Amino acid sequence: MTLQAITEQIRQKKSFLCIGLDTDVSKLPPHLSDRKNRIFEFNRQIIDATQEYAIACKPNIAFYECLGADGWNQLEMTVQYIRDRYPDLFLIADAKRGDIGNTSKKYAETFFKRFDFDAITVAPYMGSDSVIPFLQYSGKWVILLALTSNPGAEDFQFLPGPAHQPLFETVITKSLAWGNAENTMYVVGATKASLLAKIREIVPDHFLLIPGIGAQGGDLAEVARYGLNGNCGLIVNSSRAILFADSTERFAEVAAIKAKEVQMQMHGLLTEAGFTGIQE
Amino acid sequence: MTLQAITEQIRQKKSFLCIGLDTDVSKLPPHLSDRKNRIFEFNRQIIDATQEYAIACKPNIAFYECLGADGWNQLEMTVQYIRDRYPDLFLIADAKRGDIGNTSKKYAETFFKRFDFDAITVAPYMGSDSVIPFLQYSGKWVILLALTSNPGAEDFQFLPGPAHQPLFETVITKSLAWGNAENTMYVVGATKASLLAKIREIVPDHFLLIPGIGAQGGDLAEVARYGLNGNCGLIVNSSRAILFADSTERFAEVAAIKAKEVQMQMHGLLTEAGFTGIQE
Repeated sequence: MTLQAITEQIRQKKSFLCIGLDTDVSKLPPHLSDRKNRIFEFNRQIIDATQEYAIACKPNIAFYECLGADGWNQLEMTVQYIRDRYPDLFLIADAKRGDIGNTSKKYAETFFKRFDFDAITVAPYMGSDSVIPFLQYSGKWVILLALTSNPGAEDFQFLPGPAHQPLFETVITKSLAWGNAENTMYVVGATKASLLAKIREIVPDHFLLIPGIGAQGGDLAEVARYGLNGNCGLIVNSSRAILFADSTERFAEVAAIKAKEVQMQMHGLLTEAGFTGIQE
Repeated sequence: MTLQAITEQIRQKKSFLCIGLDTDVSKLPPHLSDRKNRIFEFNRQIIDATQEYAIACKPNIAFYECLGADGWNQLEMTVQYIRDRYPDLFLIADAKRGDIGNTSKKYAETFFKRFDFDAITVAPYMGSDSVIPFLQYSGKWVILLALTSNPGAEDFQFLPGPAHQPLFETVITKSLAWGNAENTMYVVGATKASLLAKIREIVPDHFLLIPGIGAQGGDLAEVARYGLNGNCGLIVNSSRAILFADSTERFAEVAAIKAKEVQMQMHGLLTEAGFTGIQE
């Protein structure tokens, strides 16, 4: 998917929301508990209900992998369903992969050829040859971990380098030699919204994937204030706050209400920021 | 598996070799190409042929994941086969996982409960809460990436911190607060053997997993010189040089010859270093 197509979808839907499919089998509504392929069934209903408010969808691979082959089958069913029905949704594999060149190449094949995801999250620790194999696919994206939203982000990501810049800044600046704003995005935790201003100086044109709204405590207005650029430049993820807002047979309906609430807030923020092309 | 059990196996087999099951489906011997479950079939023959020379076995998850559910099935068959026949083999999931706490917890469940691996490789970038969930399982191990063997290791792992120590040293020192020598090992690339001396000062008692012997160009004698400790303290991996040494129906036999060559060299190095308990 091109940067233009992502931005166009943001304009149409007046949203930069990503639905995080962290579909924890232990948290599914009880009435689905005996269903075959219940992760897929849950995802299908969530996507049908929320897709008009969201521009992206992000299965968290851990929650599929934990069921072994059955989980991977349901992941494949989910991806296929989205591809068939909602081809405009930007489809992110939240996989945090990254390994030596020949292994990253295999991971890239898996997520971009076998599964036809648009993007994958990649961990930067192993450097260039662990990331570059993912950048060899036209129309596909690497979303590189820069500043994550979890408490452990403090352990290494803020370590000051030789010119006193924190490690997450070095990750961003160094990776600019590997890709560009049309194939690379960065993960920036919403719990550190004030740092977005600094990151925007380094990458004014790149899209940023922002986790941590909702359960992890980030503030959407803050994120928009520091993070929006001329293409919007933000994809903000919400997982648990939408997925598990209700555990009855109305779960998808309640998820849609929650997603719509976020979308309406996003509409307001986009308008306020003078984001061009929003039709009132 | 306990540290004592690993060391005991090293004494018995006079080896610290790990067979890396990077079972690339495109490199399998042609006579297996029509076989159902041919990755498992290849692994089974490799393991049967080499297990007497090796103390550990390390499936590289990328090479299974790329076949989707079918690949995960064959991974499960491989793990089950090893568990049933060769319960003493130290079984490592080379997965390079690591995510926020609730997601790392899921990955830990997958690899330690569902698959019963003894250990998993983990990427450190996201810090403490991305690693600690893997340390909650008695008898299981985290193998944390410290200094990897690929060219991209230069990008971030050598960045000097506030006291001028490179990032990989900070990763090791900081992680000492999360685990200990009985549940944590470190990945240290064999292509940087001279740095092992420095790492041994920081973690004299920990086991180190050394990739990069063979195809990646590391030198075994150098690794032993700087890396051996009183428990041996080394697990040295070889993948392609053993797995794909021959592509005929004799592939397993040739793999055994290659594994035995490495084992004999290891036996010599262990004896030379005066490793206690090696029976001549």
